[in-house]
Amino acid sequence: MAQLTIWTNAFLDPDARQHLLQATREHRLLTASSTDNVLAKGVPDPTMQEADIAFGQPDPEMIATCPRLRWVQISSAGYARYDTGVIRALVAAGKLQMTNSSWVYAEPCAQHALAFILANTRQLHAAYDVQRTTHAWAHLEIRARSRLLARQTIFLAGFGSIGSRLAELLAPFGATVYGLRRRRQSLAHVELITVDDLPAALAAADHVVNLLPDDPSTRLFFNAARFEQFKPGAGYYTIGRGTTTDQDALLAALRSGRLAAAYLDVTEPEPLPPDHPLWSAPNCYVTPHSSGGHADESERLVEHFLHNLHRFERQQPLENQILR
Amino acid sequence: MAQLTIWTNAFLDPDARQHLLQATREHRLLTASSTDNVLAKGVPDPTMQEADIAFGQPDPEMIATCPRLRWVQISSAGYARYDTGVIRALVAAGKLQMTNSSWVYAEPCAQHALAFILANTRQLHAAYDVQRTTHAWAHLEIRARSRLLARQTIFLAGFGSIGSRLAELLAPFGATVYGLRRRRQSLAHVELITVDDLPAALAAADHVVNLLPDDPSTRLFFNAARFEQFKPGAGYYTIGRGTTTDQDALLAALRSGRLAAAYLDVTEPEPLPPDHPLWSAPNCYVTPHSSGGHADESERLVEHFLHNLHRFERQQPLENQILR
Repeated sequence: MAQLTIWTNAFLDPDARQHLLQATREHRLLTASSTDNVLAKGVPDPTMQEADIAFGQPDPEMIATCPRLRWVQISSAGYARYDTGVIRALVAAGKLQMTNSSWVYAEPCAQHALAFILANTRQLHAAYDVQRTTHAWAHLEIRARSRLLARQTIFLAGFGSIGSRLAELLAPFGATVYGLRRRRQSLAHVELITVDDLPAALAAADHVVNLLPDDPSTRLFFNAARFEQFKPGAGYYTIGRGTTTDQDALLAALRSGRLAAAYLDVTEPEPLPPDHPLWSAPNCYVTPHSSGGHADESERLVEHFLHNLHRFERQQPLENQILR
Repeated sequence: MAQLTIWTNAFLDPDARQHLLQATREHRLLTASSTDNVLAKGVPDPTMQEADIAFGQPDPEMIATCPRLRWVQISSAGYARYDTGVIRALVAAGKLQMTNSSWVYAEPCAQHALAFILANTRQLHAAYDVQRTTHAWAHLEIRARSRLLARQTIFLAGFGSIGSRLAELLAPFGATVYGLRRRRQSLAHVELITVDDLPAALAAADHVVNLLPDDPSTRLFFNAARFEQFKPGAGYYTIGRGTTTDQDALLAALRSGRLAAAYLDVTEPEPLPPDHPLWSAPNCYVTPHSSGGHADESERLVEHFLHNLHRFERQQPLENQILR
């Protein structure tokens, strides 16, 4: 097996970094001087010029300038900043493979989405409001506002790796689950529908989970006209990217009560500025883009990279390929 | 089919009451003058003397005094106040059947327990603390404290209808699940263990879910000695009855940090007094005995009663029999 030069700026905890060093000791591992967190854009790093493989968040502009670079594994699930004509052309010409880390993030994101849905149906934030204020025993109100998922309809707007995993987690609840995709299809736990079916799906859904990626076709996808199509009293959840929600329209839908609640893990911009009205909008609950996070995130990023490295060494197809 | 006299003090919303009236129109339905909420003890009502069947929360002392009474369906899952020598003797003699509504409550309680567990692993309350105070974007801290259930061990202390349903809901997560019961047994999604195995189970569990009913053997079951056996940093969840937790020991375990968090749906007493220290203990989250609540609770109580009434009319075995 030929020695490969692997460049990385992935943000890893010390144990995971040690694992990566150990497992790639037959190759040459170059670490960028600046490694930032998983969601930050990497800065250009001259040592990447020598790399056969890049792992982390390499500067998108630099990718085409690295003569030996044959494979880039992004340490995130989202890859909007790599979706350029130049990179797509390199991939189409067979000169570069691009992969992401959706295997790492599908699981925590699906669990986060289910945590949001159950926090809504079990009224956990309403109970916590009481706990932090009056200490009243708001027993009858909170019981009456709680709901069983078995009699609910859940619409997954975007049905990739997160949506597919979320449908598996939802299966034992007996809810009706729809997923949005390019083609209609009936799967075991979910009925896939298309944009043509959207008005009916939005009107039927008790819970709308926005899992859309960021691309030109999805920006402000959930706008005032679409919120108008929601079932009154529905819950709205965002796990994908903040750009896919028209936040002014969302605020209006929360203030009018048309939406009973919104649970947002992504916003535009991020961080959400401290004076942004979404922080204090009625029944609006924000987590700080933490849906993909988990204590063993670094370790699983490395596991996923090593899994693909093993396949790359054997010229097997890589998993989680993107931009093809 | 002989006409039966059905007495009820079940607390029902108007639609469910209408359904009950309609579906029992061939019998005689007597409604107590006072119908209270599902968890309150009913008051003695003289019209119950005429009943063949009682549905709701009849006064336990009155049950033995009603000459025609052959079946009582309790409108709750817990039935500690009906567990008397007199009632057990009537059941043992074949003069009375006692049933509860665990079919109605197993589902919402299991969903509530999973909502608690996921709120913990996804750090929803920590994020809400930030939202209600600084509006900081506590991205790295909250991601690092989030966890995947696939690498966690969950111990269900008490494995009846709620535990069994919770194990089904947990199945797709791939967590390791243990349940406490009288006999060891391996089921599809859960390994049943006995009290003899308790120290090892508590030491292994990342999440301990207390689903114990209230009876003399379970009072203060989770005491200081048992909290000492917990894995440091475990989460504790109560869905059963408040009497099964030594709350002073729980407070100490939260204050020392031995328990990372407690999510309590039941307390002793209820309502929890406004000045009770559990309201403000570190990482302690209280819901007001709402785990069994759901918007269609009345309707499902009636459905379950009518299902058993249908069986009673045909002399078929009733479901959810208790005190046998």
